[in-house]
Amino acid sequence: MRPRVYLAGPDVFLPTALVRAAALKGVCAGHGLHGVSPLDALDGEPASWAGLTEARAIALRNEAHMAGCAALIANLTPFRGPSADAGTVFEVGFMRALGRPVFGWSNSAEGFTERTRGFLGAAATRGADGAWVDGEGLLVEAFGLADNLMIEGAILASGGALFTAAVADGARWVELAAFERCVAAAARTLAG
Amino acid sequence: MRPRVYLAGPDVFLPTALVRAAALKGVCAGHGLHGVSPLDALDGEPASWAGLTEARAIALRNEAHMAGCAALIANLTPFRGPSADAGTVFEVGFMRALGRPVFGWSNSAEGFTERTRGFLGAAATRGADGAWVDGEGLLVEAFGLADNLMIEGAILASGGALFTAAVADGARWVELAAFERCVAAAARTLAG
Repeated sequence: MRPRVYLAGPDVFLPTALVRAAALKGVCAGHGLHGVSPLDALDGEPASWAGLTEARAIALRNEAHMAGCAALIANLTPFRGPSADAGTVFEVGFMRALGRPVFGWSNSAEGFTERTRGFLGAAATRGADGAWVDGEGLLVEAFGLADNLMIEGAILASGGALFTAAVADGARWVELAAFERCVAAAARTLAG
Repeated sequence: MRPRVYLAGPDVFLPTALVRAAALKGVCAGHGLHGVSPLDALDGEPASWAGLTEARAIALRNEAHMAGCAALIANLTPFRGPSADAGTVFEVGFMRALGRPVFGWSNSAEGFTERTRGFLGAAATRGADGAWVDGEGLLVEAFGLADNLMIEGAILASGGALFTAAVADGARWVELAAFERCVAAAARTLAG
């Protein structure tokens, strides 16, 4: 049986979400992995969930999908702000707490500090100690990482890895080179 | 011994982070809880962590703090985008996977859909089916929630609760009314 890997990411918000999920799963299959999409039906889903709101049922289903996977591969491409999609980051934390390897990929090669400064624009200023702060005085993280330190810290501590790629503006939700490297690394880890 | 609760939030980025942490802990103490700040030293921290980068040591320390707490209280006030701070969202997912109650509070009472549309501005348009999409065609979540569905779904499924308050623009990182309601609810849950 091929190891199951949960494919977290805002890809579910694409107009072509099902086609996209099939593409991601195809890459996984090429590396001997079974990709699980958040859009997949859940085997043995409790009948009682039919009484929940759609949002709550999706949340429980995604949690159950993760619990049934050996690893997580997260699309950490920045989403509506300097950081990754909130749902995806939640899932990184969830899988990390389960003690399973978390892999990340991003179609932004820019550092988190630079990306946050770009997002803040003129609101970003240097404090007296030289550190960058936003318009409300809150510090800009400056550890030379790809996103908030909890994310990269978890990925490395879990035995996973992070891959980034600089892609053309229109290719952020298309290009899969970083994803493929991520899948290959996950396959090696899960086979080892 | 007072139950320990982990105080997640971007409050750690405030210029007055230590004063802020003391204020949050004071509210917790008033409700019989021991508030644990991400800035706290970790009892028994492994000596080997001294060899890690500061970012990795902070990430492991926060994970250990969470593992030692009975519940999590997250400041979900929107941070540099329509969603909560990425580190905080990671921690919500982490504590949810540990099966412990997660509570959230936010100094924004605006819904996630409206907040995201406001963030996107003119880039937000209605697709053929009437749903809002961003400038790259990705769907805007529209479930009537306060943030991404994984966050609110986890809070409710964990036995926690979410409190929001509309506050004046300059009071986003000051006002603690929603936090106090959250702490009171956590205290009741942990006493029950």
